[in-house]
Amino acid sequence: MVTDYPLAIDVALSCVGFWLTVKLIPSFAGNFISANLYGRDMSKISNKKVPEALGVVCGATFLVCMFFFIPVPFVSQRSDGTNLLDFDHREFIQFIGALLSICCMVFLGFADDVLNLKWRHKLTLPTVASLPLLMVYYTNIGNTTIIVPKPLRDLIGFDLNLGLLYYLYMGMLAVFCTNAINILSGINGLEAGQSVVICLSIIAHNLIELNGPVSSYHKFSLYFMLPFLGTALGLLYHNWYPSDVFVGDTFCYFAGMTFAVVGILGHFSKMLIVFFIPQTVNFLYSVPQLFRFIPCPRHRLPKFNPKTGLVGMSKARFKSSETKFPGLLILWLAEKLGLVYVEQNLGEDEEYIECNNLTLINFLLKIFGPMHERNLTLLLLSIQIFCSGFAFFIRYYVSTIFYD
Amino acid sequence: MVTDYPLAIDVALSCVGFWLTVKLIPSFAGNFISANLYGRDMSKISNKKVPEALGVVCGATFLVCMFFFIPVPFVSQRSDGTNLLDFDHREFIQFIGALLSICCMVFLGFADDVLNLKWRHKLTLPTVASLPLLMVYYTNIGNTTIIVPKPLRDLIGFDLNLGLLYYLYMGMLAVFCTNAINILSGINGLEAGQSVVICLSIIAHNLIELNGPVSSYHKFSLYFMLPFLGTALGLLYHNWYPSDVFVGDTFCYFAGMTFAVVGILGHFSKMLIVFFIPQTVNFLYSVPQLFRFIPCPRHRLPKFNPKTGLVGMSKARFKSSETKFPGLLILWLAEKLGLVYVEQNLGEDEEYIECNNLTLINFLLKIFGPMHERNLTLLLLSIQIFCSGFAFFIRYYVSTIFYD
Repeated sequence: MVTDYPLAIDVALSCVGFWLTVKLIPSFAGNFISANLYGRDMSKISNKKVPEALGVVCGATFLVCMFFFIPVPFVSQRSDGTNLLDFDHREFIQFIGALLSICCMVFLGFADDVLNLKWRHKLTLPTVASLPLLMVYYTNIGNTTIIVPKPLRDLIGFDLNLGLLYYLYMGMLAVFCTNAINILSGINGLEAGQSVVICLSIIAHNLIELNGPVSSYHKFSLYFMLPFLGTALGLLYHNWYPSDVFVGDTFCYFAGMTFAVVGILGHFSKMLIVFFIPQTVNFLYSVPQLFRFIPCPRHRLPKFNPKTGLVGMSKARFKSSETKFPGLLILWLAEKLGLVYVEQNLGEDEEYIECNNLTLINFLLKIFGPMHERNLTLLLLSIQIFCSGFAFFIRYYVSTIFYD
Repeated sequence: MVTDYPLAIDVALSCVGFWLTVKLIPSFAGNFISANLYGRDMSKISNKKVPEALGVVCGATFLVCMFFFIPVPFVSQRSDGTNLLDFDHREFIQFIGALLSICCMVFLGFADDVLNLKWRHKLTLPTVASLPLLMVYYTNIGNTTIIVPKPLRDLIGFDLNLGLLYYLYMGMLAVFCTNAINILSGINGLEAGQSVVICLSIIAHNLIELNGPVSSYHKFSLYFMLPFLGTALGLLYHNWYPSDVFVGDTFCYFAGMTFAVVGILGHFSKMLIVFFIPQTVNFLYSVPQLFRFIPCPRHRLPKFNPKTGLVGMSKARFKSSETKFPGLLILWLAEKLGLVYVEQNLGEDEEYIECNNLTLINFLLKIFGPMHERNLTLLLLSIQIFCSGFAFFIRYYVSTIFYD
């Protein structure tokens, strides 16, 4: 199927990346434990140390594969008789700029895992790492004009120059992608698994569009997605239930930034966002706790029952005086709609409220009841796959209402 | 003096970099200690924890300054009426590629500090980090022809295409620069201090050549060297005697890679090597221990005498059976030449040999006797400055014998 030789080399590098990640992770695991980078798996009976932040090995392997790939798409143009220096400089600049943003994100993500930076840095780090991408975009392309959706064209016109807002949008996309994966996490294989599903969805989208009018954008995206797939699968191999290693913030940042980069430079950022439906739902569902309308415990992982070996929803318990407006109102509404488990009037002396922790994982456990951790991951990944199918439906059937 | 507006902005960013590094280092120091990244200062009476690997803050600040600087030299060309897309793409690609190599080196250096990688990785990591630079060079320039020195031209001709050897040379330059700084270390302020002196020497060289025929190369180097100077000075502020923080391998890798990058892309790698005379001497002097011709203790730092408050040379003690050929021969020769302190026939039962640890620092302590740690750093930095003066003498007087 692949007759394009840079893509063929990319597939080969992707296999090498998979093999390297599978081999390197166990060989470095000891170093992570010695460096105090480990956690305990809260959903297991055993209390052994599980090395944490192994996403850094996955990210570093990805970078090395990409470094070797640098000349491939560009030097290939020489065989047409064109001069080495006549290749498309603009694409080459974007390629290197994209790698710079990803490399910076892996670095800062690892620094976050090691140094346990504060919550506000979760927003700063992806912003910093997206800077090279934005600066390269500004210098290299500088086009900030978007096509207006059909229903709005009478009001605004055919296109609109967003100027600075466009850069804000790109920066926020990076923050969104990185954190979206980071907060849909906590059970074995979920972070790496969802990234693999999103990556496969992007690859499918790119392959469909490879015969379209902007095939070069989608080829550009494939160059990054294939080695990402290989290295993420290598990590998933060790992170799958029962996890031998944890992926760390490093991996979530790395995966999110890689998706953001290909979405921006591949000009399919709207499609990318649609691939993040479960993450978006999880974020919206989490808002009352994330913004502290109701208290948020340090861990919101599902609760492991050592007797049954199953995980069930975990709950937060607090007084109504600890909530902020509109926390209680949202809880009341969500309970009426069957979205949240809420119990009131607990405790003898004072009135306590209890609700399930507001994550998509706990919501599923509320609906389906306690289940085995592996099945929970499989359920979440199935939802992710279903949503990708829905995304393709929107893209190829619904979006014609809005765009030509 | 600076009338060029990208250079003026670069100077301003360099000041911001200095200020940020000075402010950020103390604010993150606690995180490093919590993460078990600390050491004890062996040359102090107090035994307090000194945070280690703070070079990562310096490196990250440098990167952020450079990210903001990305559009400056390139967008400036728009004011001449030329189109945004008509700027020199080749220079822009090199700029981003150089940043990618430096970013990767800071990342891998930090990983080394955290994970305590093995000795063989000291050579692997700079090689990996130099890959983007080599690949960009290959794709973008691909020129591997050098000018032959005059005395050899009758034999070889005017120029010579080195091909793959040229890439090997560039990769080895990165390995050399990073490790050269890493092994001339161990006393307060030395790693950052020597990097500041080398950086100032490069800046002086660039400024001299700014009116020459290849001014664009030297301007390119200045773009990197000025923010490096700012952030390295910020680190030196906290690392100067008595050190509040240690710089870690991260900084040595970061500094070495930055020098290698500007030396290669600025086309003054020979001059760069001459700026590393003290490091080269230190390396050559260390060879018998580094290559294990004689045993090498884990630490080769000078020895602190708590009674006098001075540091003196530290010694290695071993049996002759522990040496390998030509270890004893070298020792014997070096002692005859007065280069090494050697004592034999120690011990009651077995014959022990004792010699000073083979570092430039211990050699100076052998010559000048014990001294205060701050004075020792000042002595080493004075030698570095003297050698830079010698480098300029070679470049502008002696090299005319070899090149036009």
